[in-house]
Amino acid sequence: MAERVRKLVEAMRRLARKGSVSALHRTVEKSRPEDIADAVSHLAPAEQRLVFSQVDDPETAAAVLVQLDEADFKRLVQDIDFTYLVAVLDHMEVDDEADVIALLPEEIRERVLTAIETQDKEHVEEILAWPEDSAGGIMQPLAFRSHESTTCRDAINALHEQTDDLEMVFYLYVDNDNDQLVGVTSLRALLTHPPSTPLSEFMTTEVITVHPETDQEDVARLVSRYDMLAIPVVDEGRRLLGIVTIDDVVDVIKEEAAEDMLLMAGVGDEDQQIGGSVFTAAKQRALWLFVTLFGGMAMAGIIGGFESPMDTKKFAMLAVFIPVMMGMGGNVGIQAATIAVRNIATGHATVTGAPTMIFREVRIGLLMGITFAILLGAYAYLTTQSDPLLFGTAIALSILSTVVAAASFGLLVPVTLHRFGIDPAVATGPFVTTGIDIVAIFIYFFTCKAMLGL
Amino acid sequence: MAERVRKLVEAMRRLARKGSVSALHRTVEKSRPEDIADAVSHLAPAEQRLVFSQVDDPETAAAVLVQLDEADFKRLVQDIDFTYLVAVLDHMEVDDEADVIALLPEEIRERVLTAIETQDKEHVEEILAWPEDSAGGIMQPLAFRSHESTTCRDAINALHEQTDDLEMVFYLYVDNDNDQLVGVTSLRALLTHPPSTPLSEFMTTEVITVHPETDQEDVARLVSRYDMLAIPVVDEGRRLLGIVTIDDVVDVIKEEAAEDMLLMAGVGDEDQQIGGSVFTAAKQRALWLFVTLFGGMAMAGIIGGFESPMDTKKFAMLAVFIPVMMGMGGNVGIQAATIAVRNIATGHATVTGAPTMIFREVRIGLLMGITFAILLGAYAYLTTQSDPLLFGTAIALSILSTVVAAASFGLLVPVTLHRFGIDPAVATGPFVTTGIDIVAIFIYFFTCKAMLGL
Repeated sequence: MAERVRKLVEAMRRLARKGSVSALHRTVEKSRPEDIADAVSHLAPAEQRLVFSQVDDPETAAAVLVQLDEADFKRLVQDIDFTYLVAVLDHMEVDDEADVIALLPEEIRERVLTAIETQDKEHVEEILAWPEDSAGGIMQPLAFRSHESTTCRDAINALHEQTDDLEMVFYLYVDNDNDQLVGVTSLRALLTHPPSTPLSEFMTTEVITVHPETDQEDVARLVSRYDMLAIPVVDEGRRLLGIVTIDDVVDVIKEEAAEDMLLMAGVGDEDQQIGGSVFTAAKQRALWLFVTLFGGMAMAGIIGGFESPMDTKKFAMLAVFIPVMMGMGGNVGIQAATIAVRNIATGHATVTGAPTMIFREVRIGLLMGITFAILLGAYAYLTTQSDPLLFGTAIALSILSTVVAAASFGLLVPVTLHRFGIDPAVATGPFVTTGIDIVAIFIYFFTCKAMLGL
Repeated sequence: MAERVRKLVEAMRRLARKGSVSALHRTVEKSRPEDIADAVSHLAPAEQRLVFSQVDDPETAAAVLVQLDEADFKRLVQDIDFTYLVAVLDHMEVDDEADVIALLPEEIRERVLTAIETQDKEHVEEILAWPEDSAGGIMQPLAFRSHESTTCRDAINALHEQTDDLEMVFYLYVDNDNDQLVGVTSLRALLTHPPSTPLSEFMTTEVITVHPETDQEDVARLVSRYDMLAIPVVDEGRRLLGIVTIDDVVDVIKEEAAEDMLLMAGVGDEDQQIGGSVFTAAKQRALWLFVTLFGGMAMAGIIGGFESPMDTKKFAMLAVFIPVMMGMGGNVGIQAATIAVRNIATGHATVTGAPTMIFREVRIGLLMGITFAILLGAYAYLTTQSDPLLFGTAIALSILSTVVAAASFGLLVPVTLHRFGIDPAVATGPFVTTGIDIVAIFIYFFTCKAMLGL
């Protein structure tokens, strides 16, 4: 797949350079919108404009635009003629339309909202009213629905008459006299029951629903847990507001996974694309590194504090083992933090409870710590000239306490962050590693000072 | 959701302790299979058995079993009576059935394959023949299909007659006289075209397909990219072998994201569940830490080598900055590696090419390196008594080279691993961090030795 896009990018660049507009037009015409969008993200701004200007069918333009990232979208949307833009928007599903309208410059947004179809306008405004990452913000406000007394035959006829806006129809949602959602059934069930059967006779009445303010991650979890194709969004009165379909759930899952990964690495934003500005990327990454820098200065201070009253020969012996203490502490901490982040994400943490998790991490830390204490203690014993037994024991004790402390600390940070409503994935980034480094250095010098009487 | 499962777990524990089997039976009966499976994963083995023995409806038992993780499944399946097991398997979708049968002990597996329905047996064996993480290994070998000359009316009638095995019907796949897949259409299109229209008149002929050996990650990428609900799996002769449905794609995406996260942290396996053995967990994590341990010993050697000919007073000055060099190098490296892993996963890396990516990382590294060189150099200048200007400059140069080296190294490792067909996510774990630590320490001491003439 990547290979096909690479070829498309190369062809577009070549044709743009040669100015072969008609050949470029043919290339664009025979490509899928998803591929055009992908290729566009690899082009220089001028090339992007030229390529996008060759998309003259509003349906294709709509499909390309919804796939672009924010920066590219904003660049290309400027060139679009207003009437054409409205035509393009009419080809989008309402939830995508709302996302796109939200990205338009303020003054155009108002004009667009007046120009698009009245029905769409209402729906778009409804979606825009909810937070971007809530069920309300990603829902499709149109759903195929009927009254519970409707027969299969009438429901099928109703489906014939639905407009094309109902892109993904999997389920038929069933309302009662008070407009409340009371059941759901599948298209297939409509076809396989006798035409005169009313929906109420075979519909499923246990419907899993979400509220518009439900977080999109919880929506995704429910849909994937119960293998649903769409989940209805209802208000407090159980009136159906819309549905979130599985294609949007897939996007949410991918988005959240990418976000977690970048947070864990202390990168923080999806804006680190290959095509983006080097300066912005450096600025974004550097922000996270200031934590590391100040942590490093603090450690220099701690080490300096231990060093000054110490015999320099003995200090030099200790200095040799600084990297292994930090390395082991850091990696053990990241392991524990990652496991905790996973267990929080899957809900296991809530079921098990923090004390059990901490107790578990301490035992794992002890087991690993004892193993590494023996190995590193032996290494120190064998490589040291003066007083090797005492020095080896001090190193062994230091690594043991560092590993146990790192495992507990690595677990506690995400658990605490989660309790305060902060995404625990941040925890495995520079904050935890730097914190653990400081703890490791302190434990190391403190233990050795106490044991060796320095 | 986690809250509901927590309550269910507590209720089950309480009833199991009191031996209230009939109350436990009622609790199990009124719970959803997905919730039972989730709760079971938090129970002790004896409780698990008691709870699972209360599931006496084979359909529910099937739904519970497919959701369990491997260890729990193997424990519970032992207790199941053979005839009941076969009944349970008949309630599973064929792809799940194959997964479950693959986990059975050898001797039972053979007996089961003889006992299940002949049609299922064929399909199960077909799936088992493909690698677990290929399209063939996750496909559903049954699909709703018709000949291109079939009319809408006949296709709808055919759907009525299909057995219940066709759980998720979204598309109707269309074959020609040679049994080759030539088109696809939606259930909805069947309903909205005149009953006498043949499928060939309105089917989509551009069908996106995969081969049975296609990696499941590529399958997932295609399905999510083109917003499909199912993707057909065809052989070299374009004969339809089965379909991969979106619910399985969601599982693949979640599984791969979790796998990447654990690999990045150097944990390596999903088996680090809260309920699992502490000893196994420690062993698994420790394996990765040996890299860090040996790396740390190597660094002790490097530092020792630089130390012995050096003036101990000057060495002590340098030792104070070891942590900040390692911390900055490590975090910059992880950032670069994570961005590279993301770009490889999304296909951006293939389109852009390695040289462009390296050039970009070097520029980002330079920008960040210069910033931190100024800050840390100033700090060293201000905190050092003897020869502060020279020492500050040496520290500044060291951090600059460390950051640039870490950024390049962090990018190169995943790119290289990917080229050799190894999952690049491994790269951000202990291997890269330890490698970068060694590089950082070496650069640091080498630069200072050269500059300060130690």
